Amino acid sequence: MSSRPVRIPARSVDEYRDTIERLLRPLAARAIESVPVPQALGRQLSEDVRSPVELPVFRNSAMDGYAVRADSIAVTPVTLPMAGVVAAGDAGRDPLPAGAAVKVMTGAPIPPGADCVVPVEDTRSEGAKVVIGRGRSAGEFIREPGTDVRVGDLLVPAATALTPRHIAALAAVGLAEVPVFAPVRAAVITTGDELVPAGQPLRPGQIYNSNGIALAAALRANGVTVVSVEHSTDDPDVFRRLITAATGSADLVFTSGGVSKGDFEVVKDVLAPMGGEFGSVAVQPGGPQGLTVVDGVPVLSFPGNPVSTMVSFEVFARPILRLLAGLEPVRTRELPLTEPVRSPQGRRQFLRGRVTDAGVESVSGQGSHLVAAMAWADVLIDIAAETTELPAGATVRVLSL
Amino acid sequence: MSSRPVRIPARSVDEYRDTIERLLRPLAARAIESVPVPQALGRQLSEDVRSPVELPVFRNSAMDGYAVRADSIAVTPVTLPMAGVVAAGDAGRDPLPAGAAVKVMTGAPIPPGADCVVPVEDTRSEGAKVVIGRGRSAGEFIREPGTDVRVGDLLVPAATALTPRHIAALAAVGLAEVPVFAPVRAAVITTGDELVPAGQPLRPGQIYNSNGIALAAALRANGVTVVSVEHSTDDPDVFRRLITAATGSADLVFTSGGVSKGDFEVVKDVLAPMGGEFGSVAVQPGGPQGLTVVDGVPVLSFPGNPVSTMVSFEVFARPILRLLAGLEPVRTRELPLTEPVRSPQGRRQFLRGRVTDAGVESVSGQGSHLVAAMAWADVLIDIAAETTELPAGATVRVLSL
Repeated sequence: MSSRPVRIPARSVDEYRDTIERLLRPLAARAIESVPVPQALGRQLSEDVRSPVELPVFRNSAMDGYAVRADSIAVTPVTLPMAGVVAAGDAGRDPLPAGAAVKVMTGAPIPPGADCVVPVEDTRSEGAKVVIGRGRSAGEFIREPGTDVRVGDLLVPAATALTPRHIAALAAVGLAEVPVFAPVRAAVITTGDELVPAGQPLRPGQIYNSNGIALAAALRANGVTVVSVEHSTDDPDVFRRLITAATGSADLVFTSGGVSKGDFEVVKDVLAPMGGEFGSVAVQPGGPQGLTVVDGVPVLSFPGNPVSTMVSFEVFARPILRLLAGLEPVRTRELPLTEPVRSPQGRRQFLRGRVTDAGVESVSGQGSHLVAAMAWADVLIDIAAETTELPAGATVRVLSL
Repeated sequence: MSSRPVRIPARSVDEYRDTIERLLRPLAARAIESVPVPQALGRQLSEDVRSPVELPVFRNSAMDGYAVRADSIAVTPVTLPMAGVVAAGDAGRDPLPAGAAVKVMTGAPIPPGADCVVPVEDTRSEGAKVVIGRGRSAGEFIREPGTDVRVGDLLVPAATALTPRHIAALAAVGLAEVPVFAPVRAAVITTGDELVPAGQPLRPGQIYNSNGIALAAALRANGVTVVSVEHSTDDPDVFRRLITAATGSADLVFTSGGVSKGDFEVVKDVLAPMGGEFGSVAVQPGGPQGLTVVDGVPVLSFPGNPVSTMVSFEVFARPILRLLAGLEPVRTRELPLTEPVRSPQGRRQFLRGRVTDAGVESVSGQGSHLVAAMAWADVLIDIAAETTELPAGATVRVLSL
């Protein structure tokens, strides 16, 4: 394994996030594949898609009614002979006889020679004739070719993550497949001798391992493919083998735990000698952070506490991952606090909060181990590093979870 | 096939939407299955999930540091003998000898007898002793059992669609599986002789069939499983066979096309005699609508124009489908118009719009056939039926697409 040192030039949230963004931005250049449009929901276009056809493809009726020449119905009521019926799907090549009407369905081709359509509501059928009750000008209720889309018009720009309305437009111009980027592939490695998988009984000193499951869910919800979720003991050889496998199969690796100031910090102990930068970012929760590049693959090392891991993901990784996946940016809003809050001096704090009709309330309990509060929170309240207290009613910035 | 008449009691958007919601609400009672928590992202809980354990499970350290008795460090600096090290994951059963310190890692059990932790930053190791630089009170940096979650606490309420933060909480309490509802299953039938599948050349009078692909994508994006997407010609026997198959395999059926006033309206011609209600809702686009219950299965019949189909889905189906799937409601906002708009008297209009820094702009071209505009729109602008024009700067309600 080769590695190169990464500078963490400063410890503010913004600078650390910028460092991560610079490191991950090259992942925008990923493999391209062609997928059928019906399977392309959520996939990210690798290039601008332009229309191969014009829409409407042919001159057609906007209404169920009668195709006529406007000058045949200049004086109304007027009775015209019926010269046929054109349904949607008919080729519609027969021209309109002079002074006659042809019944047309919505979407049916307009007979050559007709220049407007009289809606069926304004007509009365009388055997082989039709009585037209009101006049229309040339062009009315006729859809001219190319008035919606012309050949070569930009339909959906490159890098867009396709939503149903994009799929509808791509299908309407008859595209069978579109070129999309392969998703970013991430591997997750959790660490810690104290962790046991869900569903097993706990022995003294043990807790359940939730970070692998939680990070995998968060990655999937943000357009990333999770190629593996592994757990390492605090044995450096075990962790080293897992890092080698992960960096060999993924574009990006996340680790949790083992980055702090204890005696057994397996992530720091293995990755720092490989050029990893480990240190403290001025944020709570989630202060201890590490960043390493192993064989060209970025490894983001989050602290092991479940809430610290999730907040680290939200603050440092999610914005750039959504950008890379072509998804909408993380939504931020300004809301009034419904109660006063306190915050430690010198560390930017992300309080778990819940939006109410009155504003945003801090979810009770802000210890970084409070998983229950995280489940109830729907936003993070962003409190500046220099702020130590805010009164009820103060406007705060919140990030949607 | 049996069927029963459905009343469409009125033709306003709100009343028609209410009718559909009443018809679909029984789908809330669906089959329940158990899924592993790592696969439960986006699935909807069928019951309240309560914690089977307390968190923290045991008394543990919030910091890397030294567990002591507060009365041993009442006067500082003080030098204490080191009586051992407890790592995270250790059983930690050995009690603290009187007047000594035990090194503890974050998350490690607190030795019986210790009542606070001194963070490592405030200490200095000296061989087999540790110098404590400042005092702490009983309880500091100790996480007591059950302070985050108690046994039986509500973690995630019934009907919630699980997001990563919910998954994190469920995993943290060690749940291996959770009970979830089976998704709503929908079938889609498009109709029209003029429609051909994507990727084929168009003959005169033909257009591409986009509604099946678009509706399937819209359904999937709103938590619905699509069991089939079929196309019917305008032959009533073909459509009747497809309706029988669809209502036999799905909870809900969508059709497009064949609901208007033309001579060949296959959907209306087949379903009206089975008790279907077909008529006009005071909305643009998407006026012609039909509603039938076939063998107990609701069949929603939208007009065939691609933009009418998608707007019908957004306005009439999406709100109730999101409710049934436990997803957040469709987001609505009030925004200023950046340009004047006109609207037909007597019909509520949903203009395709795009949000800008200045407010919301109508996307050029409001013909119901304008698929290109739909691709660019990110909201629908909701204009009341009685409104005929609004000036730039007027506040309008918009629905996110």
